[in-house]
Amino acid sequence: MNENYYAVIMAGGVGSRFWPLSRENKPKQFLDILGTGETLLQQTYRRLRKFCKPENILIVTHASFNDIVKEQVPEIISKNILLEPMRKNTGPCIAYATYKIINKDPNAVVAVMPSDHIILREDVFTKTVTTAMKQAEVDDKIITLGITPSRPETGYGYIQYKQNEDSSDEIKKVKTFTEKPQLELALKFIDSGDFLWNAGIFISSVKTLVNSFNKHLPDVANIFNNGSQHYYTESENNFIEKAYSMCPNISMDYGIMEKADNVFVIEADMGWSDIGTWSALYDNSEKNKQNNLVNSENIYTYDVNNSIIRIDKNKVAVIQGLENYIVIDEGDALLICRMDKEQNIKNYVEKIKKDKKDIYL
Amino acid sequence: MNENYYAVIMAGGVGSRFWPLSRENKPKQFLDILGTGETLLQQTYRRLRKFCKPENILIVTHASFNDIVKEQVPEIISKNILLEPMRKNTGPCIAYATYKIINKDPNAVVAVMPSDHIILREDVFTKTVTTAMKQAEVDDKIITLGITPSRPETGYGYIQYKQNEDSSDEIKKVKTFTEKPQLELALKFIDSGDFLWNAGIFISSVKTLVNSFNKHLPDVANIFNNGSQHYYTESENNFIEKAYSMCPNISMDYGIMEKADNVFVIEADMGWSDIGTWSALYDNSEKNKQNNLVNSENIYTYDVNNSIIRIDKNKVAVIQGLENYIVIDEGDALLICRMDKEQNIKNYVEKIKKDKKDIYL
Repeated sequence: MNENYYAVIMAGGVGSRFWPLSRENKPKQFLDILGTGETLLQQTYRRLRKFCKPENILIVTHASFNDIVKEQVPEIISKNILLEPMRKNTGPCIAYATYKIINKDPNAVVAVMPSDHIILREDVFTKTVTTAMKQAEVDDKIITLGITPSRPETGYGYIQYKQNEDSSDEIKKVKTFTEKPQLELALKFIDSGDFLWNAGIFISSVKTLVNSFNKHLPDVANIFNNGSQHYYTESENNFIEKAYSMCPNISMDYGIMEKADNVFVIEADMGWSDIGTWSALYDNSEKNKQNNLVNSENIYTYDVNNSIIRIDKNKVAVIQGLENYIVIDEGDALLICRMDKEQNIKNYVEKIKKDKKDIYL
Repeated sequence: MNENYYAVIMAGGVGSRFWPLSRENKPKQFLDILGTGETLLQQTYRRLRKFCKPENILIVTHASFNDIVKEQVPEIISKNILLEPMRKNTGPCIAYATYKIINKDPNAVVAVMPSDHIILREDVFTKTVTTAMKQAEVDDKIITLGITPSRPETGYGYIQYKQNEDSSDEIKKVKTFTEKPQLELALKFIDSGDFLWNAGIFISSVKTLVNSFNKHLPDVANIFNNGSQHYYTESENNFIEKAYSMCPNISMDYGIMEKADNVFVIEADMGWSDIGTWSALYDNSEKNKQNNLVNSENIYTYDVNNSIIRIDKNKVAVIQGLENYIVIDEGDALLICRMDKEQNIKNYVEKIKKDKKDIYL
């Protein structure tokens, strides 16, 4: 295992689209949403252990998730859990990890990725990341992973690469980044053949990253550069508290990727999904004969089709006469919702919040 | 309060039509099914306390329900809980109570009724039972309560009375008993105007009842007559164990009412229902603006109409897009079922039993 290989897992996200399975104190990345016995964070960590020693894997998360990270990844080195005092998007998150790593190992090459995505073809992931790591060791490149698109998805960002480069080179120069396009545009992207989905995963040397922050986000670079005497010491938390309060709220894509001219992409058809919704989970999961996704042998269905049924394992459910529904019974909350209305779930959660019933969220 | 007035509450029934709200160890009579703060048994007991001292109210139930009866009716005298070792229908149940009472008070007049019905107009109930009690004190009559029918219900039994009797007399002679008729017949019953619903409630002196058992069910009479030296003693339970094992399984209606010629009926338009199904409960309950019957402020509905939603009070539910459904989340079980399929619930319960998951029943 290469001593200079590092990984940064971003695990600070929150969201209500998987309520009531996900909760404010247990968002998606901490859930075994596929029912495989591993949470999404645990899957991400395990995938990266093929490249990195535990000492070289960092998890950046919100301060409130410190305990759950330790619980789910007991192998993690305590000081490798980077606690964000507030959420400032991916820019400051990646800067913090980058500057911390470079203070320990200036020759580090780092793979940065979200903690809450699924990757079904791990062999492709491993092969692609290996290629990218090797290239990033020797070249001043930020290498993103671009997912072979299977449909004109309007919920994802797209990466366009330059066709005119040497076509035998699997690492292609990036031309444009486009956030969630309208359907018409997405259809054109798919037709053109030079657009890939942006999985938010990239590989780079920390030197290249620091240069990029200096060039494109000098304020952020300056803030974290001042931390050199604090990283790995008792004063790190205090320093980070102040640093974050000064940071702008900015994404890595907007702050650096879209501006830098050394961004590359390597195509990876690795069964990737960010499973951002119940229906995405449904699409990515194996269904039973009635096309239902059920999580327990104690679920009895009659005239139920194309639905997600998920209950506490110690309960029984009898469900009759539903088509295209989401039924989630989790702890102190029950959700029943047509799958084509799932975009309303966040509003339903808002209403509960407004009624000051936060205990259910 | 008349010292000779007694009441017998039959509380041994079981059933699965209200699963998962009702369970094998907590059938309907022990549930606050209307959400009024009183279980059906407690309502029945309270209604009868207007006529009888606690010492004169007997509850006949299955041996396994002894504790729950004590818990729900703490005022009840322990020896007034008559424990049936097995279920032999209403005939032996009423015989046991009758013979026990006559051994203590030969002049007793008794009101016998199920524990799991609702009566919305208690003033009518009180007035009608008072009339019947007074009459039964002086006449050798079994006086049933007949409910003014409001629809051609095929799930109830009917009592036909003789029109030719003195029409000013509100206590009318019974002509026929008919169990659950076909719809065509039920329509004729309603048209004819001399049919009432059989509520399974009757009033009689115990002397008259003993005479009736002697005449129409001599085997049963003989069995319980032999208990004279055991009632109110330590050997009562042993005696009853043997008595029940010898008894036929026979209903009071079939064994006595349909055969005796001293059966009368008094009409009572008292807002009665045996609420045997979820839809009957729905029909008998006040609905909200969306025509939903909900039991908690923590139920959020969106595009939900004409449905019953019932959840544990400490939970929250978000329910979207249901019309004419039953949703019951109770303890370790969840039921979602179209209201017009509620007759299947007992089959669903059978299936769970067959799978040896009795803990959920």
